[in-house]
Amino acid sequence: MGDSDCLFCDIVRDKKAASRVLETKEFIVIENKYPKAPVHLLVVDKTHREKSDTMAGVYQSENYWDKLFYAVSQAVIKLNLDKIGYKVVINESKYYHYGHEHIHVIGGEIGGVESNEVRL
Amino acid sequence: MGDSDCLFCDIVRDKKAASRVLETKEFIVIENKYPKAPVHLLVVDKTHREKSDTMAGVYQSENYWDKLFYAVSQAVIKLNLDKIGYKVVINESKYYHYGHEHIHVIGGEIGGVESNEVRL
Repeated sequence: MGDSDCLFCDIVRDKKAASRVLETKEFIVIENKYPKAPVHLLVVDKTHREKSDTMAGVYQSENYWDKLFYAVSQAVIKLNLDKIGYKVVINESKYYHYGHEHIHVIGGEIGGVESNEVRL
Repeated sequence: MGDSDCLFCDIVRDKKAASRVLETKEFIVIENKYPKAPVHLLVVDKTHREKSDTMAGVYQSENYWDKLFYAVSQAVIKLNLDKIGYKVVINESKYYHYGHEHIHVIGGEIGGVESNEVRL
C-alpha cells in the first residue's frame, strides 16, 4: 500500500533519500533531515496508515503500538539513547504535516532540559 | 504491586488526590496538577512498572503499549482532543522525575504551535 503524494511512502520505497538507522518488519527508523536535537529520529510505518486511524485503535488487534515501540527500543539500544537521554513525541491532530503514521524520538542535550518547559 | 515511596503508586491507591478523567483495566488517566498546556493529562500505569523496563519491551508479550494507547484514545475521544489538537510526549532516560510508567498527553492551544519549535 502507498500513497503517490506521500513523502513517507516515497522514503519507504526509496524514491526519496533518507538516512536509515534500522528497519523492523513493520517500520523504518530514519534520521530527520531537519533535526531539532542532536539526535532526531523518525519511526515511520512501512505501510501508509493514517494517524487518525492508528490513534483511534483501528490496528489494535494487530498489536500495532507494541510493534512500533519495538522499533523505538531497537533504535534506543543501537544509539545508546538510554544513556544519553531521550524523549518520544507523537504529534496528533493539528500538530503534524503528514498523516502517514510516524513518531519522533529526540535525544541528546535538548535545549532547556533542566527546565519545566521541556521536562513535561 | 506498589512502591511506598512512589507518587504515582499513591495516586493509584487514592492515598494522594488526583482528578481522574477515566480508567481502563490497566491505566488511569488524570489531570496533571501542574499543567503546561490547556489540557495536560497523565496516563499512569496502575501497576508500578519501571520506564526502563517498559521501553525495553519487558512487557511486549502482554501487548503493553497497545493497552496504554487504548487509554490514550479513550481520553482523546472523551475530551475531544482530536478536534482541539494534541501531542503525546514520553519522557525517558534523564527526562523524567518518576520511574513509574506514565506518559503525557497535552492538548489545546500550545504555545508556538505554528512554529517548528513545537511542531517537531
